[in-house]
Amino acid sequence: MVVKVYGPDYACPKRVIVCLIEKEIEFETVHVDGFKGEHKKAEYLKLQVYGSKNWPILQDGDYILYESRAILRYYAEKYKTQGTDLLGKTIEERGLVEQWLEVETHNFNPPIFNLVMNLLVYPLVGLPNDPKVIQESEEKLENVLDIYEERLSKTKYLAGDFFSHADLRHLPFGHYLMNQMKKENMVRERKHVSAWWDDISHRPSWKKVLQLYKYPM
Amino acid sequence: MVVKVYGPDYACPKRVIVCLIEKEIEFETVHVDGFKGEHKKAEYLKLQVYGSKNWPILQDGDYILYESRAILRYYAEKYKTQGTDLLGKTIEERGLVEQWLEVETHNFNPPIFNLVMNLLVYPLVGLPNDPKVIQESEEKLENVLDIYEERLSKTKYLAGDFFSHADLRHLPFGHYLMNQMKKENMVRERKHVSAWWDDISHRPSWKKVLQLYKYPM
Repeated sequence: MVVKVYGPDYACPKRVIVCLIEKEIEFETVHVDGFKGEHKKAEYLKLQVYGSKNWPILQDGDYILYESRAILRYYAEKYKTQGTDLLGKTIEERGLVEQWLEVETHNFNPPIFNLVMNLLVYPLVGLPNDPKVIQESEEKLENVLDIYEERLSKTKYLAGDFFSHADLRHLPFGHYLMNQMKKENMVRERKHVSAWWDDISHRPSWKKVLQLYKYPM
Repeated sequence: MVVKVYGPDYACPKRVIVCLIEKEIEFETVHVDGFKGEHKKAEYLKLQVYGSKNWPILQDGDYILYESRAILRYYAEKYKTQGTDLLGKTIEERGLVEQWLEVETHNFNPPIFNLVMNLLVYPLVGLPNDPKVIQESEEKLENVLDIYEERLSKTKYLAGDFFSHADLRHLPFGHYLMNQMKKENMVRERKHVSAWWDDISHRPSWKKVLQLYKYPM
């Protein structure tokens, strides 16, 4: 059964797709236009466990999974020896991957998510943005990029000298930051973060994602 | 080498300790009083990778790990067959555990963290709380508890009919909600959430944590 990913044009599904490509897993995508409310259609709602805002949904035969970060872990585990090893080779390496995944989740994601909403999504749907939220989010993002800069001065990637989920997860929102949001200076003024970004964003898997699926904004 | 957990009186380290007890892993704790600034002492700062606010720190021989959720995964992986199985028995069960862990991380944790800060920590250190944040956080927490109520009407625990990390992670902040914050009505007015809370909070592991380590507030 081919793996199905719903809504490939959005950032979180892209996080899953780049992982599927790295793991050499065959998949197909189902276009869903969230801006036209297509995610509220009965055929998608019946796939939902909670709410109507779960992106991505992944269908693998009868098995349905939500939450991009859970899906990443599921496939990394299911196809451990296939494609790129994204969780580290030893339990100790995996612990460090998990540690930096938590930093991405709790420190990087909240401010960049707020920036994406306020600078890209709200203008697109005619909602006002909140300058206070923008300023606070930029400050928080600067702080986490400082942490990355220090870490990346010692190791090539976040969890160590090996590419992992902890790096890969930054691609979709990082791409917004560097392109649509025109905030590339936040990366470029940090030497090691800048080199790291160039490295991970030039992986063939990510280039393929960008070529196959266009961002809606 | 015995596992060392720093700062056992706080909520996030408790999340680790209840896991160590469930996994039957020997450990010792090092008391650190964050309210007296002891976490900024040189001996702790040298353990830190980033910032000075990382709780808990875990030291296992030469191996140091931060972020309670990463530590939980590390030990669940390292001692797979020892103690309680917290990640599910199959890869599919583990996928569902990961999915509900993400709900805990992104939906449950942010509002309850805000409530803990505004209702418990700020009063203790003489900072004013923010009524708007409190109201918004309560609404968000009600929403996630509604999702849990629906889910728990179908399965005994969040990821299925087996106890897992996805349940365990709710204990420290859930305990604040039910006790120090005096918001137990949010749980009690939801029949299935209420039964689930009684089940997980009566586990011997959690009772032992509460008996050994007192919350600072």
